[in-house]
Amino acid sequence: MTDDGILVVSEDACRELVGRKDAFDAVEAVFAAMARGDAYNFPVIREAIGYADALYGFKSGFDRAGLALGLKSGGYWPGNAAKGLTNHQSTVFLFDPDTGRLKALVGGNYLTAVRTAAASSVSIAHLARPDARVLGMVGAGHQSAFQLRAAAEQRSFEKVVAWNFHPEMLPALGKVAAEIGLPFEAVERERLGAEADVIITITSAFEPLMMRDWIKPGTHIACMGTDTKGKQEVDAALVAAATVFTDEVAQSISIGEAQHAVAQGLKAEADITPIGAVINGAHPGRNSEAEITLFDGTGVGLQDLAVASVAADLAKAGGRAQVVRL
Amino acid sequence: MTDDGILVVSEDACRELVGRKDAFDAVEAVFAAMARGDAYNFPVIREAIGYADALYGFKSGFDRAGLALGLKSGGYWPGNAAKGLTNHQSTVFLFDPDTGRLKALVGGNYLTAVRTAAASSVSIAHLARPDARVLGMVGAGHQSAFQLRAAAEQRSFEKVVAWNFHPEMLPALGKVAAEIGLPFEAVERERLGAEADVIITITSAFEPLMMRDWIKPGTHIACMGTDTKGKQEVDAALVAAATVFTDEVAQSISIGEAQHAVAQGLKAEADITPIGAVINGAHPGRNSEAEITLFDGTGVGLQDLAVASVAADLAKAGGRAQVVRL
Repeated sequence: MTDDGILVVSEDACRELVGRKDAFDAVEAVFAAMARGDAYNFPVIREAIGYADALYGFKSGFDRAGLALGLKSGGYWPGNAAKGLTNHQSTVFLFDPDTGRLKALVGGNYLTAVRTAAASSVSIAHLARPDARVLGMVGAGHQSAFQLRAAAEQRSFEKVVAWNFHPEMLPALGKVAAEIGLPFEAVERERLGAEADVIITITSAFEPLMMRDWIKPGTHIACMGTDTKGKQEVDAALVAAATVFTDEVAQSISIGEAQHAVAQGLKAEADITPIGAVINGAHPGRNSEAEITLFDGTGVGLQDLAVASVAADLAKAGGRAQVVRL
Repeated sequence: MTDDGILVVSEDACRELVGRKDAFDAVEAVFAAMARGDAYNFPVIREAIGYADALYGFKSGFDRAGLALGLKSGGYWPGNAAKGLTNHQSTVFLFDPDTGRLKALVGGNYLTAVRTAAASSVSIAHLARPDARVLGMVGAGHQSAFQLRAAAEQRSFEKVVAWNFHPEMLPALGKVAAEIGLPFEAVERERLGAEADVIITITSAFEPLMMRDWIKPGTHIACMGTDTKGKQEVDAALVAAATVFTDEVAQSISIGEAQHAVAQGLKAEADITPIGAVINGAHPGRNSEAEITLFDGTGVGLQDLAVASVAADLAKAGGRAQVVRL
């Protein structure tokens, strides 16, 4: 048995090596594998540890098709910013499914942003109207720039309209739009709904920010912020009115954006389609020009494993990984 | 914020650095912290992944007293032996509880054997009669040598009696007894029960190997093999007759040796005492010379974190760790 050692792939290496196209392809493939039953996520561990106000846990799973086995570990440390560190801390561990031995240790901070952006852009690719021209961004935090860049590549957008709870954060997102050559306008939410053909919500809201009546027919909306019981980005009536797709149905109805519509009896579990079924051709996706489609991106461990596998493979091939042995 | 990097502590370093006394002290301290409510284990993830017949999962937790946060990841790959690898594969990951950043990567194979042996030896130290002279070993696999060495240090044993399902494996355990200067005798189980003052069961049995009637008054028995629903090493009537202690009550009644007695209504959850309560002085432990005490060692993630923390600290102090950065 040869011992290839354990690859250590740094945050810098991930940033250099894993592009948006790589992440898109990896996330699209693993969503498809999940819908075929070839990949599944294990139960999520998430604990308020009662120390440093931290939330800590693991997302894990196994993709039999991509042979990715492992976990993303990490959490949220609210005191980190004051120490010059990222509040969200993530590390991905990949194991060899043939032997159980640790194969790679991959920095997870950049990859988390990239895989989340890849999920919404996969949903836009498969569900937004081909003639979508205006992109609406709700949220202007750290992840919004990743979301904007990934979304912009999926349709021939001509304009970005954006809103954020703290308006002073919008110019930074405007700069990203300028870099990719798109006009950018800070707008109120009702106007955002009236203008946008595609909307991405990427906030940590606990109250609906976008209401049913503000959204035009034919809109595709990707709700990317809700990953916990109690969080909410859009009106439950909007979820009820939309055709809903998700990464993982079990998470969508319990900790995702659909939790509220389901709890209120406005939507049933059976009405929610894994986006992998659309990717695989088992579900037609958008049915009409007027239909509102909604992607509930809850975030699954298999996305992390998929992009981390890409990082590890590219780092190995390019000599960008350190190698250690246990 | 200084970046100390991530310590990589190899299996060889663990073997050289972590002695039985270190493991005993670390495991005793974390059992005590658990009983005080200062340390707790997170839910266990355990999955048959449907590939390579592997069982894979994580045990994790946080010890606020020892500031150990992290997980042991790994599992059982039955095809490994044919490849020259250990079937059980374990790696421990430690995180900085103040920032959530990965602090150490520690080989877990040797440490798993050592922390399991430390658990039974902690139970012997606190529960066996001081005048125990004969040690009975049920099981002669890989872990039995660790168990024997650790147990031998807790009482003035004068003899070892042993039984194994495959008797041809007993001479290897006899060699270990010889190394520590103890006479060794392979015996039938009934005689083992009649002679032994302390018994350790360390098998992967699914049927009781030791019956109630074979055990003498005053015996201490440490059941170390049962860690899954369905496994069983001793008669439920023996569990019922004994005063039962455990590492974690929730595991003891669900996947530990006590599962059968509890399912049959012979023992109640409230009758089972965390051994940490004895260590802390909140429970007197053994009440009489004639009492049979039973320690149900189910194995918890906090034990792994405790010994891995010792390994990381010693490796750092002694310059025996590689350092990598993400």
